[in-house]
Amino acid sequence: MARINLMARNTDMRRRLPLVCLLWEVAMIILFGVFVRFNSEADAAGWTEKKYEENITSDTENEFYFRYPSFQDVHVMIFVGFGFLMTFLQRYGFGAVGFNFLLAAFGIQWALLMQGWFHTFENGKIVIGVQSLIGADFCVGSVCIAFGAILGKVSPVQVLIMTLFQVTLFSVNEYILLDLLHVKDAGGSMTIHTFGAYFGLTVTAILYRPNLDQTKDKQGSVYHSDLFSMIGTLFLWMYWPSFNSAISNHGDAQHRAAINTYCSLAACVLTTVAFSSVLEKKGRLNMVHIQNATLAGGVAIGTAAEMMLPPYGSLIIGFISGIVSTVGFVFVTPFLESKLHIQDTCGIHNLHAMPGLIGGIVGAVTAAAATEEVYGTEGLIHAFDFIGPYANRTPRVQGGFQAAGIAVSLGMALVGGAIVGGILKLPFFGDPTDENCFDDDVYWEVLEDEENSLYSMQDSTGKSVTNS
Amino acid sequence: MARINLMARNTDMRRRLPLVCLLWEVAMIILFGVFVRFNSEADAAGWTEKKYEENITSDTENEFYFRYPSFQDVHVMIFVGFGFLMTFLQRYGFGAVGFNFLLAAFGIQWALLMQGWFHTFENGKIVIGVQSLIGADFCVGSVCIAFGAILGKVSPVQVLIMTLFQVTLFSVNEYILLDLLHVKDAGGSMTIHTFGAYFGLTVTAILYRPNLDQTKDKQGSVYHSDLFSMIGTLFLWMYWPSFNSAISNHGDAQHRAAINTYCSLAACVLTTVAFSSVLEKKGRLNMVHIQNATLAGGVAIGTAAEMMLPPYGSLIIGFISGIVSTVGFVFVTPFLESKLHIQDTCGIHNLHAMPGLIGGIVGAVTAAAATEEVYGTEGLIHAFDFIGPYANRTPRVQGGFQAAGIAVSLGMALVGGAIVGGILKLPFFGDPTDENCFDDDVYWEVLEDEENSLYSMQDSTGKSVTNS
Amino acid sequence: MARINLMARNTDMRRRLPLVCLLWEVAMIILFGVFVRFNSEADAAGWTEKKYEENITSDTENEFYFRYPSFQDVHVMIFVGFGFLMTFLQRYGFGAVGFNFLLAAFGIQWALLMQGWFHTFENGKIVIGVQSLIGADFCVGSVCIAFGAILGKVSPVQVLIMTLFQVTLFSVNEYILLDLLHVKDAGGSMTIHTFGAYFGLTVTAILYRPNLDQTKDKQGSVYHSDLFSMIGTLFLWMYWPSFNSAISNHGDAQHRAAINTYCSLAACVLTTVAFSSVLEKKGRLNMVHIQNATLAGGVAIGTAAEMMLPPYGSLIIGFISGIVSTVGFVFVTPFLESKLHIQDTCGIHNLHAMPGLIGGIVGAVTAAAATEEVYGTEGLIHAFDFIGPYANRTPRVQGGFQAAGIAVSLGMALVGGAIVGGILKLPFFGDPTDENCFDDDVYWEVLEDEENSLYSMQDSTGKSVTNS
Repeated sequence: MARINLMARNTDMRRRLPLVCLLWEVAMIILFGVFVRFNSEADAAGWTEKKYEENITSDTENEFYFRYPSFQDVHVMIFVGFGFLMTFLQRYGFGAVGFNFLLAAFGIQWALLMQGWFHTFENGKIVIGVQSLIGADFCVGSVCIAFGAILGKVSPVQVLIMTLFQVTLFSVNEYILLDLLHVKDAGGSMTIHTFGAYFGLTVTAILYRPNLDQTKDKQGSVYHSDLFSMIGTLFLWMYWPSFNSAISNHGDAQHRAAINTYCSLAACVLTTVAFSSVLEKKGRLNMVHIQNATLAGGVAIGTAAEMMLPPYGSLIIGFISGIVSTVGFVFVTPFLESKLHIQDTCGIHNLHAMPGLIGGIVGAVTAAAATEEVYGTEGLIHAFDFIGPYANRTPRVQGGFQAAGIAVSLGMALVGGAIVGGILKLPFFGDPTDENCFDDDVYWEVLEDEENSLYSMQDSTGKSVTNS
Repeated sequence: MARINLMARNTDMRRRLPLVCLLWEVAMIILFGVFVRFNSEADAAGWTEKKYEENITSDTENEFYFRYPSFQDVHVMIFVGFGFLMTFLQRYGFGAVGFNFLLAAFGIQWALLMQGWFHTFENGKIVIGVQSLIGADFCVGSVCIAFGAILGKVSPVQVLIMTLFQVTLFSVNEYILLDLLHVKDAGGSMTIHTFGAYFGLTVTAILYRPNLDQTKDKQGSVYHSDLFSMIGTLFLWMYWPSFNSAISNHGDAQHRAAINTYCSLAACVLTTVAFSSVLEKKGRLNMVHIQNATLAGGVAIGTAAEMMLPPYGSLIIGFISGIVSTVGFVFVTPFLESKLHIQDTCGIHNLHAMPGLIGGIVGAVTAAAATEEVYGTEGLIHAFDFIGPYANRTPRVQGGFQAAGIAVSLGMALVGGAIVGGILKLPFFGDPTDENCFDDDVYWEVLEDEENSLYSMQDSTGKSVTNS
Repeated sequence: MARINLMARNTDMRRRLPLVCLLWEVAMIILFGVFVRFNSEADAAGWTEKKYEENITSDTENEFYFRYPSFQDVHVMIFVGFGFLMTFLQRYGFGAVGFNFLLAAFGIQWALLMQGWFHTFENGKIVIGVQSLIGADFCVGSVCIAFGAILGKVSPVQVLIMTLFQVTLFSVNEYILLDLLHVKDAGGSMTIHTFGAYFGLTVTAILYRPNLDQTKDKQGSVYHSDLFSMIGTLFLWMYWPSFNSAISNHGDAQHRAAINTYCSLAACVLTTVAFSSVLEKKGRLNMVHIQNATLAGGVAIGTAAEMMLPPYGSLIIGFISGIVSTVGFVFVTPFLESKLHIQDTCGIHNLHAMPGLIGGIVGAVTAAAATEEVYGTEGLIHAFDFIGPYANRTPRVQGGFQAAGIAVSLGMALVGGAIVGGILKLPFFGDPTDENCFDDDVYWEVLEDEENSLYSMQDSTGKSVTNS
């Protein structure tokens, strides 16, 4: 493995990274100070008042008890799931986990503001509760996805800048879809996966590096980094039912969304294994597929999971998703790279982009096919919120709007990605040179020993110590 | 470490594995299409109707809220707990996590059908809800256990075949015990652990390999693989209270089962450490014991945890289990291997078989000793469902049936294991040759470098890249 | 890395460790047998009676459903969070995870007794329920913290002895603060972090080793051990909202505590990254900071999280904590080591001691500043339990008592630490010689190969096998 001889000065983060982190955190504090307060479920006086007004007899009827367990699972997916999934890179584990941690910690704060302005702004204040935390994690999820495309090729400052813009664009897109188009997308196939993936692919296309081949060896995994990555895979896979049900209506909708996601993911594993085997000359399985393509079923069932899609429908979605995703890793990603100059480090195109589109389409079809027989009269209205100005919508019309949602998300992603990609291309953000890509040595204190096996040696004061 | 020179053609999975995965997944889809629907807690129209009929005033009284958190913990135990526990093998981490993932993803689907036909079959349909998901995970748990005995010595096709049959046998056994004998076994000491372990031990006895000694070096762990394994150990240990309480009656039973399991596991750690130390000539601890024997208390308290076994009783059970399990690893497993030709890769005999028997016995005794003083009149009936045709059962009779449950589970395991072992012995399932056992190189794309340290080098397209 | 040539006889644990473990576990069984019973939420007859007396209509109103999800998260923080956080040491991963496991398994039992005698002792019995499990985990948390200071320098017997005494002192301190001073400390900034850290620092000062420098190389991490450590970091970080809300009043208090903790931790990450970068000559990040200082916000918000501290206040606390903690790692820990002879292996001073003090101060100020406008009349009384003998307390007086709580915790820690440190210094507990510190080879079966890379090779019987 090539050693890092050329430490170009421009990757010295000592001024830019602290400046961005401190300034932006101060900005968060000021904005939270001006705008953010607890909602009536989390405010002492507010809860007392709400209990009185709504005849709530017990403190245990607080929304906390019905949303927090799902929130915790989503939280694990964002920080451990995405963070460790990306540690497959043999020399970029610190950057994978660490920069994911950084972007998410900033992103959830900015998302609380952005989404708060759009959804819970009353009397000049953004009021937040546990649903706000879920929404912020969802929003940041789209940034984690985009990060997967540029992983290893950017500086932490670029990651933060992308987060700043992408959270804003996400919130705008989410508002258009959920509020203006009145679309349902509980698991975010459109708002999170389609948007996040095509945004990230556009950014990475703008940031194309013609000579990245020289670091081909560092773009792969080693035995134990593949096992670290499986930690991420499994926590994403296991907790996806919580992700897809976290913001659904209480009751049967949350219950059903969890079951449908569980089924889709199970089927997806089987077809991923099948195609990973059949596409290798000796039938051997490929860890990249097991780490990523097994999750495609969760993405593709995101929109429809809470709808009355029967369990066998979820199995079919998962069946298809595993195939599409694995075929993507084997054939589409190399094509994208060589023909379209899209260098997609984690293969997000195969896990989030294509399955996200599938999810949006399945959601549109399932919505259009909804009937009163299946949902019940009340149930149909409740499932799609056919109330107020939407009281006269028919399922078929809803299906049309769902499809429109895919188009809007795509458009927002491509246009937004182009703009943000252009911003990131500016030369003062400390991005690494080609030969320094995929190497933690650039932005992290890491020591290399004579056998070229990468390790960092510091004691608890953080002082480097040599290996004797 | 011996390199894999002889890649016998019969381990080429390229036809058989995809065929099995795809055919069986299509079969799942068809069967789910014909049979599986949501139950009234997860169905839109059904829930509306149920609320009306049972005067349920809030959507938050849906069963989802009272079972889903436990379900998520069980889910983590199956996929991360078992999956990573088995990564102690230095060169079989991919197979451990990956094949566990595969068998469980298929197993939960087949279990939803099998258990559904036995338990929730109404009007020609299997109706499922979150309890079905828990039950399916429980069933698959027994397969994960059996897999531990044959880990490293079988092909993924054999693993799937074993899953197919074992899920069926589990469901039959579970039906006999819970429905016909009317036995209580909330934590599955009999249905999951005793059955799963003796089934697996019988299978591995049938698949005995006289020359396996030549791969002795690969049957061990390395430093970091032992740490990966501890991830599995700890998630199993921490979430076991959820496992043993997941299907108990709401209220005090779930609450008590969690507490009893917590106590039993705590005591178990102390005696495991004690015996691991005393049985080594310099008193040093053995990671194999810490990874496995510390869990025996959870197995042994499985049946009785929800009963009115007082906390000190749980401590005693844990105390004993740690000793039995550790002594098992030190003395019994070698004996089983050399005298009875049972090659037990993970030592499931010590973690699941013996402690499972203990659990069944403790359950029988605790049931027989139940009194109205301790449970209350209502409480006694409620704890053992002494209703309907069982209204006249006494605790002593119940204890007798509990003991019968152990015998039935054992019998089902031994007979079933012999049959399935025979099926697995058929020569067209691609099992590895002796020298290829315990090596991921057979079924996974893995590269080996000059220092013989195993690593896989692929970029995100899955293409192999050489190490420069 | 120096090989362990000198295995001093006194580290042979073969008599002392089993003796301590078995004797103490038998003592636990006896004490539990005499004293411990289920409370009315976990007792069959008791729950039936309670439902009747309090007109509880459903089993799902059992306390289990409102506390167990938080308990599970706390449980993961204790066993996986602390356990893996300490695996950064390149050759002490087994001791880190394993001894943490051991001390916690014993500690929770002893804590159930100690805290039970203080808080839930009725009619000669200690009655336990899920809140007892949370309390016991909290208590053990303080021991995990102290263990971080002495990690690598003590024998498992010393660890158990420290646990025995520290749990007792913790319970006394907790009783003084929560019951006598009537202080609020839901997240334990004072009772867990301040107490645990200063106790541990005092112990390690007493156990000062002048020649520890010779093992400087083993006191550091290697690349993959830093990734294992991040598993611990992330589970602590993600689940801290549950930790800080686990014992708060139902309803808005739990809800608010989770939100405040989430905010504080997010801000903390940004300033940790900023200062880690700015304090390194090339602006590179230091894994030690990312692993530890990012958590300081959770510690510092512990007391005030459940109070009506607005979200921007939490951001400020987190902002400050990240800076204090990172600066601590860079400047304070070396100072403590060279000038005050405090060798703090994990840097607990920076993560728990200083942020714990911050937490106590913030809690005192936030309490003193409480008003009826902000809390509501009922809310204020409910938040601080201004009932019974405390009905006439004002927030300002409460603030004074909160500050007294810091002082008492500090005093208890320093005095208790000195005494226990003195006990641990007695020469018959098998502590390692200087050159054997930070090496698993002393207390664990581990093999070393010719390249000096540490690994343990055992098959599932625990027998050592050589590497061919």
